Amino acid sequence: MDWISRNNILIVGLGLMGGSYARGLKRLGFHVTAIDKDPESVSWALEHGIVDLAYDHVEEEAVRTADAAIFALYPGVFLQWIRDWQHLFKPGLRITDVTGVKSCVVYDIQAALRDDVEFIAAHPMAGREVSGVQNSDERIFRDANYIVVPTEKNTPEAIAWCESLGRILGCRHIARLSPEEHDEMIGFVSQLTHCIAVSLMTCSDNTHLVDYTGDSFRDLTRIARINDAMWSELFLMNKEPLLKQMDVFIRELENFRAMLAAEDREGMREKMRLSTQRRALFERK
Amino acid sequence: MDWISRNNILIVGLGLMGGSYARGLKRLGFHVTAIDKDPESVSWALEHGIVDLAYDHVEEEAVRTADAAIFALYPGVFLQWIRDWQHLFKPGLRITDVTGVKSCVVYDIQAALRDDVEFIAAHPMAGREVSGVQNSDERIFRDANYIVVPTEKNTPEAIAWCESLGRILGCRHIARLSPEEHDEMIGFVSQLTHCIAVSLMTCSDNTHLVDYTGDSFRDLTRIARINDAMWSELFLMNKEPLLKQMDVFIRELENFRAMLAAEDREGMREKMRLSTQRRALFERK
Repeated sequence: MDWISRNNILIVGLGLMGGSYARGLKRLGFHVTAIDKDPESVSWALEHGIVDLAYDHVEEEAVRTADAAIFALYPGVFLQWIRDWQHLFKPGLRITDVTGVKSCVVYDIQAALRDDVEFIAAHPMAGREVSGVQNSDERIFRDANYIVVPTEKNTPEAIAWCESLGRILGCRHIARLSPEEHDEMIGFVSQLTHCIAVSLMTCSDNTHLVDYTGDSFRDLTRIARINDAMWSELFLMNKEPLLKQMDVFIRELENFRAMLAAEDREGMREKMRLSTQRRALFERK
Repeated sequence: MDWISRNNILIVGLGLMGGSYARGLKRLGFHVTAIDKDPESVSWALEHGIVDLAYDHVEEEAVRTADAAIFALYPGVFLQWIRDWQHLFKPGLRITDVTGVKSCVVYDIQAALRDDVEFIAAHPMAGREVSGVQNSDERIFRDANYIVVPTEKNTPEAIAWCESLGRILGCRHIARLSPEEHDEMIGFVSQLTHCIAVSLMTCSDNTHLVDYTGDSFRDLTRIARINDAMWSELFLMNKEPLLKQMDVFIRELENFRAMLAAEDREGMREKMRLSTQRRALFERK
């Protein structure tokens, strides 16, 4: 654990995720500096004491003095930021991120990066259906899964450091996946589920149903409140894996539909039993 | 409110729903008698004091003395029970139910029923993803929606009585729908969502994903733990409305898939904004 020597944390991007990292790390005693282009987010964070310092521009001294940096930017902006400002990085700086897609981010960042600093990708499986630093909350990490996404370029030290970051924030399970494995997984558990939730809300005008609905519909559509700029970008950056997962799901739902149309009670029951058995594994212990 | 004169409540079917009614009504001071063919459910309910009396057979005196009866049976069993035992009903008895489909239940029951007793259908939009009286809980009604499903045969008095039943149990919004409106609604908010949750669990072997997943996948599959006997029966009894809702949803998801394949960012964003706007109406106040 070389956290002791990495006291100055720089957070680039002060939205829901950046703000939640800031809160968690400041509470743990780190010196947290944040940079975000939005002056409102910066002043909100300062007023609420969730950071030690914050700037609405790239304050060079803040970048120079960072021992570790966490990037919580939209994927498309991340690479450009690195290109523009990496000359300021302290040698030995460790960088991680929160980006929800990996293959099309990690390799480009690592290729663009100076040889004396290291980027180790991560994806905390935590979030909220609202956005902005005003909604940030360090409790989102509690008991969450935290995925570290190393490549051949990463050192064991940086991987261990990144894993410990997830652990000290309160994540329960720290896993490792390759960028490709990550993107296939995320296409299924996160992106496909968001496509389903959105489609449930948009497939017909259901707003008159609010007085009749139970928890099932609420559960399936909680994530239908969605940041359209961010999620459309994530979907496009993971297009092929997501299309594949959508096809697998649509085929299965059509399969179930065919069983209902054919009144194949036993076929439906078999699916339900398999579903029940598998879902039991996902209960929080 | 003629609850005062309807002190003796008979509950037929002591599962999750029957047990929850029993708990809620007993706590409110009613004398609650339950009948269930399963001796274990009966003795569990007696041991835990959630009923005053309970029988694992049709105890004639219990039926004769009932002022109101709540049927929480599988739909297929309900009609037969009425046919077999209605000769015991006290004149003026009011009957309600919890059945999750209505068109194919309500008319048959009302046609079969003696003229001097009245059946007013209801559907509390409450439940749990577990079954059995052991999991019953009167808190499931708290803030739930409660749908009363009258037909031309129902009297205003029975409708008002049934609405008050939902209200005293703690349901927040009491609504009225025709059997056909109910079934169309339920095909969408409840049955389609269960089909989706099941298909998400069965479309590929995802059990290795338990260490990576976030809340989205957990939310969308909570209801994938499903009572296969009950739900297959409900689906088959509401086949046409459910098939229609599945088609509408699949078409919309394919539509979204086509936008992703065509990299139509603005089209996806528009769907997401509509989804976000509509979903906001479903937040619990």
